[in-house]
Amino acid sequence: MKTLKIPEATVIRLSVYSRYLNQLENNGIITVSSGEIAEGVNGSPAQVRKDLAYFGEFGTRGVGYNVKDLNHHIRKILGLDNRWNVVIVGAGNLGSALTHYKGFQERGFNILAVFDNDINKVGLRIGGVPIYPVSHLSEYVKKEKVQIGIVAVPAQYAQEVVDALVEADIKAILNFAPRVINIPGHIDFRNVDLVVNLEILTFNMVNK
Amino acid sequence: MKTLKIPEATVIRLSVYSRYLNQLENNGIITVSSGEIAEGVNGSPAQVRKDLAYFGEFGTRGVGYNVKDLNHHIRKILGLDNRWNVVIVGAGNLGSALTHYKGFQERGFNILAVFDNDINKVGLRIGGVPIYPVSHLSEYVKKEKVQIGIVAVPAQYAQEVVDALVEADIKAILNFAPRVINIPGHIDFRNVDLVVNLEILTFNMVNK
Repeated sequence: MKTLKIPEATVIRLSVYSRYLNQLENNGIITVSSGEIAEGVNGSPAQVRKDLAYFGEFGTRGVGYNVKDLNHHIRKILGLDNRWNVVIVGAGNLGSALTHYKGFQERGFNILAVFDNDINKVGLRIGGVPIYPVSHLSEYVKKEKVQIGIVAVPAQYAQEVVDALVEADIKAILNFAPRVINIPGHIDFRNVDLVVNLEILTFNMVNK
Repeated sequence: MKTLKIPEATVIRLSVYSRYLNQLENNGIITVSSGEIAEGVNGSPAQVRKDLAYFGEFGTRGVGYNVKDLNHHIRKILGLDNRWNVVIVGAGNLGSALTHYKGFQERGFNILAVFDNDINKVGLRIGGVPIYPVSHLSEYVKKEKVQIGIVAVPAQYAQEVVDALVEADIKAILNFAPRVINIPGHIDFRNVDLVVNLEILTFNMVNK
């Protein structure tokens, strides 16, 4: 696995294919063609074939892919044959939405706890997930071997939250705060920037 | 502007640069070098220079860029010299988080209204923004000349909401529902897929 060099755009599509394959599995479908996958995800058959070619010869000509095997293989590539321990920092609207979000559990992400600095929220639960004080964040991450932290706090608190996660030896961070974050290079880090997503749309609208 | 061919990765960085330039403007900074921009956004100076080169010769050697002019130019490229009318569909946790999100207003996005199918929410407000029944969505979009719809409803309702927006001649849609959406090609469409973002992180963790 160490030598795999798959572009991020492909990883994104693999993730989408995998969820479509889940859907097929749940419907009892045994085999699927690249054309059917393409149709299911609004992609092109050529792109699907190219993406799946990263894994060598998988399908059978004229028959297609075995849904379960292909999905198993993609999930393994994506690291989803593990379960991952996740904490969410921030119990505001966004943190609550993320905690309630069913898609995470389905894909093997365990949301263990939510952290917040509001003492009125500490001790409550969001859909069964406990809210702890943010002062306990580092200790909890170490003790529970949390690998992924999701940062959903206001921008002005984001850096200190990230620092606490880094200090606790977190492996990866998904950040929703619209702020440039300083982070050591060994930690996998990703921003979900809501404004940028809207600005790509406005760019496309004015430049076509 | 019509002939501009800027890759999406560059558009994303331009959006980030622009917010950093805003910050400099607010701090009264007059000029900035590509190296300083790079430092401010955790990027590389070579990348910044390459990105800004899309707009021709802008900076002055040894002096750098005029912060205000550069930001004005980038905002224009991104379509942010207009204000954009936006509606959010879904008044759940995610829709509420998006409605409260201050970053949108700052960048020229007017969140006019939120739509929901829960009659207990209709008539309430989220941070001053009114909640209307989703049955009025198409009519409202037409009447108020809404250009952008943000879809923050559960997956099973996403397609019908998108269909209502399309019928009302919306120009662009940002979709948060984790579902493959069928949409005519003339509408600018973008998915923000929270699971995919986590799976890019797990992919990176197991493949390094």
